[in-house]
Amino acid sequence: MSEKKYRILVVNDDGFTAPGIKALIEVMKEIGEVTVVAPDSPQSGMGHAITIGKPLRLDKIHLYEGVEMYKCSGTPVDCVKLAVNKIFKGRKPDLCVSGINHGLNNSINVIYSGTMSAAVEGAIENIPSIGFSLDDYTWDADFEPCKKYIKAIALEVLKNGLQSGVLLNVNFPNKEKPIQGIKICRQANAKWAEDFEERQDPYNRNYYWLTGVFQNNDKGEDSDVWALNHHYVSVVPVQFDMTAHHAISVINEWNFDI
Amino acid sequence: MSEKKYRILVVNDDGFTAPGIKALIEVMKEIGEVTVVAPDSPQSGMGHAITIGKPLRLDKIHLYEGVEMYKCSGTPVDCVKLAVNKIFKGRKPDLCVSGINHGLNNSINVIYSGTMSAAVEGAIENIPSIGFSLDDYTWDADFEPCKKYIKAIALEVLKNGLQSGVLLNVNFPNKEKPIQGIKICRQANAKWAEDFEERQDPYNRNYYWLTGVFQNNDKGEDSDVWALNHHYVSVVPVQFDMTAHHAISVINEWNFDI
Repeated sequence: MSEKKYRILVVNDDGFTAPGIKALIEVMKEIGEVTVVAPDSPQSGMGHAITIGKPLRLDKIHLYEGVEMYKCSGTPVDCVKLAVNKIFKGRKPDLCVSGINHGLNNSINVIYSGTMSAAVEGAIENIPSIGFSLDDYTWDADFEPCKKYIKAIALEVLKNGLQSGVLLNVNFPNKEKPIQGIKICRQANAKWAEDFEERQDPYNRNYYWLTGVFQNNDKGEDSDVWALNHHYVSVVPVQFDMTAHHAISVINEWNFDI
Repeated sequence: MSEKKYRILVVNDDGFTAPGIKALIEVMKEIGEVTVVAPDSPQSGMGHAITIGKPLRLDKIHLYEGVEMYKCSGTPVDCVKLAVNKIFKGRKPDLCVSGINHGLNNSINVIYSGTMSAAVEGAIENIPSIGFSLDDYTWDADFEPCKKYIKAIALEVLKNGLQSGVLLNVNFPNKEKPIQGIKICRQANAKWAEDFEERQDPYNRNYYWLTGVFQNNDKGEDSDVWALNHHYVSVVPVQFDMTAHHAISVINEWNFDI
């Protein structure tokens, strides 16, 4: 059987013009038939936002040879929903890949990331899904070293499948050293320490720019932050059941004064 | 010691004018000192979105007696970040409550909901946090029956604390029958079956409205959907560690062909 049997949905959050999605498309073309639905403007930090209060646009574009491609006015999650419902219709794709993001989505970033939320939405739709991100925030980031890992991980997912309700969050280390291999990890317990830069507009009204510093106090050698710091590709299995199952028995002991 | 010792942050996603946040403020005023930071426009479905590409406005308003209140141009998560950093500054509030949402945030809705994402952000900031939602989507929903439960749940959280990385997702059933009590639950395994209504603008270009039907195939009597269908208040402990810990050993068996 030809390797071209797989039908692959490619999405991202940096928008359809991003070099990161171009690199991901190039890898996926080696594996299957590629359909791209990407935002028409950058959607970083959109998390799992969906568009309710206004209508969506979905327009076919011609950008890469042999690739069916659409730009969408909505969020990354909207892109996945539109792809499943209006493009693939009844017959779901075999794989949904998101990225390659220009910047890390390790640790708590999974929850803010449009890249990862698109992959989560793919998994909610019961499609094997993977998000890819690189520790390089520049537009001209070099995605070449990621490509063989992306292909290998995608092929393993297609071969083995993923457990129900599980997707993968794959992050690539920075280019300071060669990649040392792949580590299967847990999400590090880290967070952003925000600050807001306060400025005044020409009318003397204040406004704020969100800024922040990533703070990791998790020293575990099984975390994604550790793996990336040691130049491994981090692979975190992610779930969208957000229940804190371990807390149910604790709260069952409480006595509510009704 | 006076009951007024607690410092409470109130947020929502329906915006500062919503009757739901008014009801929540009324309950919290009985417990402590209330500070409100709410979006200046409806932010339903914003999930964990943050505002990166543009600046934020934060303006003090005077709406309810004895309440410090601000409206914010950003998302529900932005509201929490601004509150912690620019209003509470170093000294975090004792409690962060979000809602009362006009509409359910049970099951998978936790991931799309601005109400719940604000509470998640509170928990990331290590503040005991609770999101409240009512199964009534109308603007003139009756929040009165929720109030004694909200007070009792908030007081238990303040008394017992919550485990690190855990918050509560509280949903109230519809008004067809009286509330039967409180159930501690897990998130039901349900999803939205989307459809998009396709229309044409006056220039003959297509656009799409997101619509959908909630589909629950989870028959478990320990789920939030079951509790709400049986007219209980559902309380789901939620975590923001999205690692699928049970999948790590499975994926460690894979052989990546690098």
